[in-house]
Amino acid sequence: MIRNWRWTEYSVCLSCTDWADVDLARLSLNSITLKSLSLSQLVVACERRDVPALAPWRQLLPDNDVRSAAKALHRAGLTVSSLCRGGMFTAADDHGRKLAIADNRRAIEQAHALNARCLVIVVGPVVGTDLAGSRAMVRDGLGAVLADAQSAGVRLAIEPLHPMLAADRSVVCRLDEALDLCEELTPTAVTGTRDQLGVIVDAYHVWWDAGLEAAIARAGSRIAGVHVSDWVSPLTGELASGRGMMGDGVIDLPQLVGWCDLVGYTGPVEVEILSDHWWSLPADRVLDTVIDRFTTNV
Amino acid sequence: MIRNWRWTEYSVCLSCTDWADVDLARLSLNSITLKSLSLSQLVVACERRDVPALAPWRQLLPDNDVRSAAKALHRAGLTVSSLCRGGMFTAADDHGRKLAIADNRRAIEQAHALNARCLVIVVGPVVGTDLAGSRAMVRDGLGAVLADAQSAGVRLAIEPLHPMLAADRSVVCRLDEALDLCEELTPTAVTGTRDQLGVIVDAYHVWWDAGLEAAIARAGSRIAGVHVSDWVSPLTGELASGRGMMGDGVIDLPQLVGWCDLVGYTGPVEVEILSDHWWSLPADRVLDTVIDRFTTNV
Repeated sequence: MIRNWRWTEYSVCLSCTDWADVDLARLSLNSITLKSLSLSQLVVACERRDVPALAPWRQLLPDNDVRSAAKALHRAGLTVSSLCRGGMFTAADDHGRKLAIADNRRAIEQAHALNARCLVIVVGPVVGTDLAGSRAMVRDGLGAVLADAQSAGVRLAIEPLHPMLAADRSVVCRLDEALDLCEELTPTAVTGTRDQLGVIVDAYHVWWDAGLEAAIARAGSRIAGVHVSDWVSPLTGELASGRGMMGDGVIDLPQLVGWCDLVGYTGPVEVEILSDHWWSLPADRVLDTVIDRFTTNV
Repeated sequence: MIRNWRWTEYSVCLSCTDWADVDLARLSLNSITLKSLSLSQLVVACERRDVPALAPWRQLLPDNDVRSAAKALHRAGLTVSSLCRGGMFTAADDHGRKLAIADNRRAIEQAHALNARCLVIVVGPVVGTDLAGSRAMVRDGLGAVLADAQSAGVRLAIEPLHPMLAADRSVVCRLDEALDLCEELTPTAVTGTRDQLGVIVDAYHVWWDAGLEAAIARAGSRIAGVHVSDWVSPLTGELASGRGMMGDGVIDLPQLVGWCDLVGYTGPVEVEILSDHWWSLPADRVLDTVIDRFTTNV
């Protein structure tokens, strides 16, 4: 269970005496968990169940009217824990890389309009067989949009993905690799820029790493978000959509979240479950389970 | 292509002028690549195609007569590049861990009888949600059989498996983790024991790791074997049997093998392809392709 329940930006619950509610104070619902719902349906679902934060994927936003989405979220009192996602900086040619940079600038504008705590960055897969070259593309792409993020006041958060996704989604596979990138682009020594670039600690992607506790300690205030789900063995279905519900798998989630708390992370904990199984069930039932498991297994 | 083709233990090819043959001098066929064949069928296949080395899985060995297998391999002039496998030291209770140690002692005897260059160690999966505890079981299990290996003259080789197999097969996921274990159990400072415990560099399991080149340099003479196959995206079928043929995927195999050569590895390069696709094809055709791709893509 989440031991450090104080979340400074959600002050309502500081005076709350119902402990079941208190445990939800840090819950954020990542929209992909209830993939079948529209943004307005997600807002209603969160309001009804006292879920204080939501993390929308960009495909839910209306093309040219992100402000109406922002208003709906604000009206419901929902914090936007993150916007998912920017990144995908790797491409076979210069044209592709330029398109990615333009898309990241749009994502930064949207994150700004939504007042999102961060924009999640999924960096992009290997190009050909050139891992080092692909990682250089990521560094250059991030470098190209960092000033835009800074002037918009949007925090970028690199999410290392599981190594099994290196060929499809992300050549940044470990938290330490993400932190190396942060250090290179926004060195700690330069005051004021350090935390402009942060990291997401997603349990599903990093749980296996023997160096995880040390990497979380190293990350410290660079932690921009924590995501939970579970690793259920054996993995079934597609690599990207076989995640389990918290408590159904092998990840020690209280330990992982506890490590983040210990170095000062007090923000939302997003439930992000990409799962063919859970997507096949009614959204209400899934949300019931999310809330139940969040209070007992996170 | 393998640039350093000298393999001191296969001196026949040192005077060879047929470069196609020279390239095969380091080829070893891991038996699982042609899963449908018996040990005697594999021996015949290797003899016919001038494959100089074979790496049998233990299930191919007759229960109480490993010496007849050893004789057949010796008669055919085949080097046994490795025996697959020992390990699986993690278990929910003491009884299970003792059974694993007993099984590893049998595997060490078999590796000795076959004059195998090493016994591959797949350490075992996470027990419950306790990664650290599971890794301690691995350390203790390896520690318990190290003296047996030493007196039998059998080299143990820890094979880190891909992090996606941490819940099913191995809590040692990176080459650096395997080397940490080696350092702990057989410190470099103790003369004569250092290389008793080595590592396997299997491209499929470690290709994604940004720290791989440095880890290979760190490993140096601890490298007891190199395995090749390829990572084909998207991964299909079961996690453990979706490997690709060399050249069909995203791994820069010449670079990886070159890094091993650079730190002094001159031994066999095993082709180990666990693949529902390749298992469905005739063994002859698969071996043709293995030989072709080994000379052009490794």
